[in-house]
Amino acid sequence: MIQQLIDRIETLQAPIVVGLDPMLSYVPEQIQKQAFEEYGETLAGAAEAIWQFNKQIVDATCDLIPAVKPQIAMYEQFGVEGLQAFQKTIEYCKSKGLIVIGDVKRGDIGSTSEAYAVGHLGKVQVGSHSYAGFDEDFATVNPYLGSDGIKPFLKVCREYDKGIFILVKTSNPSSGEFQDQLIDGTPLYELVGKKVAEWGAESMDGDYSNVGCVVGATYPEMGKVLRTLMPKTYILVPGYGAQGGRAEDLVHYFNADGLGAIVNSSRGIIAAYKQEQYQHFGSANFADASRQAVLDMKADINHALARN
Amino acid sequence: MIQQLIDRIETLQAPIVVGLDPMLSYVPEQIQKQAFEEYGETLAGAAEAIWQFNKQIVDATCDLIPAVKPQIAMYEQFGVEGLQAFQKTIEYCKSKGLIVIGDVKRGDIGSTSEAYAVGHLGKVQVGSHSYAGFDEDFATVNPYLGSDGIKPFLKVCREYDKGIFILVKTSNPSSGEFQDQLIDGTPLYELVGKKVAEWGAESMDGDYSNVGCVVGATYPEMGKVLRTLMPKTYILVPGYGAQGGRAEDLVHYFNADGLGAIVNSSRGIIAAYKQEQYQHFGSANFADASRQAVLDMKADINHALARN
Repeated sequence: MIQQLIDRIETLQAPIVVGLDPMLSYVPEQIQKQAFEEYGETLAGAAEAIWQFNKQIVDATCDLIPAVKPQIAMYEQFGVEGLQAFQKTIEYCKSKGLIVIGDVKRGDIGSTSEAYAVGHLGKVQVGSHSYAGFDEDFATVNPYLGSDGIKPFLKVCREYDKGIFILVKTSNPSSGEFQDQLIDGTPLYELVGKKVAEWGAESMDGDYSNVGCVVGATYPEMGKVLRTLMPKTYILVPGYGAQGGRAEDLVHYFNADGLGAIVNSSRGIIAAYKQEQYQHFGSANFADASRQAVLDMKADINHALARN
Repeated sequence: MIQQLIDRIETLQAPIVVGLDPMLSYVPEQIQKQAFEEYGETLAGAAEAIWQFNKQIVDATCDLIPAVKPQIAMYEQFGVEGLQAFQKTIEYCKSKGLIVIGDVKRGDIGSTSEAYAVGHLGKVQVGSHSYAGFDEDFATVNPYLGSDGIKPFLKVCREYDKGIFILVKTSNPSSGEFQDQLIDGTPLYELVGKKVAEWGAESMDGDYSNVGCVVGATYPEMGKVLRTLMPKTYILVPGYGAQGGRAEDLVHYFNADGLGAIVNSSRGIIAAYKQEQYQHFGSANFADASRQAVLDMKADINHALARN
């Protein structure tokens, strides 16, 4: 699966992913109004609004980007109806040729972790039939429970040619509280990084592994170290833009082959029309603003990579 | 919220919780058959089967137990339809007076963590209305991302009088890979435990905090230490029974007041009819087998506590 992602990244010259993390407050008034007219101010109405919002952004950007990363929490907050919108979004993105990274940060043990893996990346058996629940191409996974939590994902990934990105060093200010703690002089995130490389060694797909990791754009020095520790591991990089990560900080997340990292932007793209820079598009043309923001992000990152 | 749980534990003399983690293979043939006749061998059919299974177990045990702990992964594997069964199960358990601990192990940052908190414990705003998505009473939370991941949960818990159980030391064999790593001589799980006590200090509800933790029954020596480190923290204890934790190992998870811990059993209760000890009930009376297994578990734990 990672090779499919790499192929699209190379074809489009775009090591970027758009985070589909819709807050209801990002959705333009007119879309909310129409959804509420049809379904009322209900969970179903909210789900319809974010689905229509997503659809227009996907339509406006899918020829430019290799992948999307829907954040399931933003859908889960609207209960079952929200998760229906999550599922519809995944299905639609895949129909447009996009690779879908489910930002689900799941993690449990044994049969429970396997149930998450099956639900998001594999198929579940029901009598003599089998069904894909959500059917993302990649999922993000939390490593706190150790190998017992990861191995069921590896098994399902092998069976269905899917991939995972394991949290190593997250982009948030307090990520260091536990992740930076020193163990015999080595920070925990490095220890996790080494395990990621180990888990990944058995899941190679071309030059890279189907087991990737997450390292926040907000910690470029740590990203540099982790890059060398895990040469075959693709790094999913959140924190660019709105969270403060700059393109020039990200060049060391890439390998010498120009590959090895994919940078996410969520708010910066999907709510671009609310930023001063793109305000002139107006809320009616919010999706065009998102398209322009994608073009600008792509240029920004490619420029930094070319300069390096 | 923790006080409500304590009241029920004291009234019923039962510091136990039943894990509603249905595998389709636990559901007796006749229930599966009926569900598949109605909905086909589909995700909806599977969801109906586990919901009917849950309902009978809840009916047979709700007068004996203070709480249930549905494991969302077991529902999520069946996609949206499975999550509908999760929601119906929660609603039904609450209508029977049970306290519901959503074993969701969510954890993210900032607005994303808040979205999870809102979806599972609070209410989401849609226009001028607000709705509860899943509406558990407690949720389990993963601490790997630090305070940024926890504080949004604390906020929602305060607003809606709900609680969380934060993973400290999990019951699985590989939990030590990261959790046991020594930081200046102190294992990571103790560091997390100390933070749990700190986060919990601002969320007191009677003698205990609405911020609890998870410590596996399979590590009794660690449980003993953690108990003294976090005197006001309720401990949710998985790993009893099927995973190998014995009642006599668990007495040190309790405080001198006889409170402070609640022990979970999942498979051991809900699939009791498959065990030699309860086989005589037969699969038609699987719920009666579960009731007997609850009575036996309660006696086992109370006996160990009385001996201590």
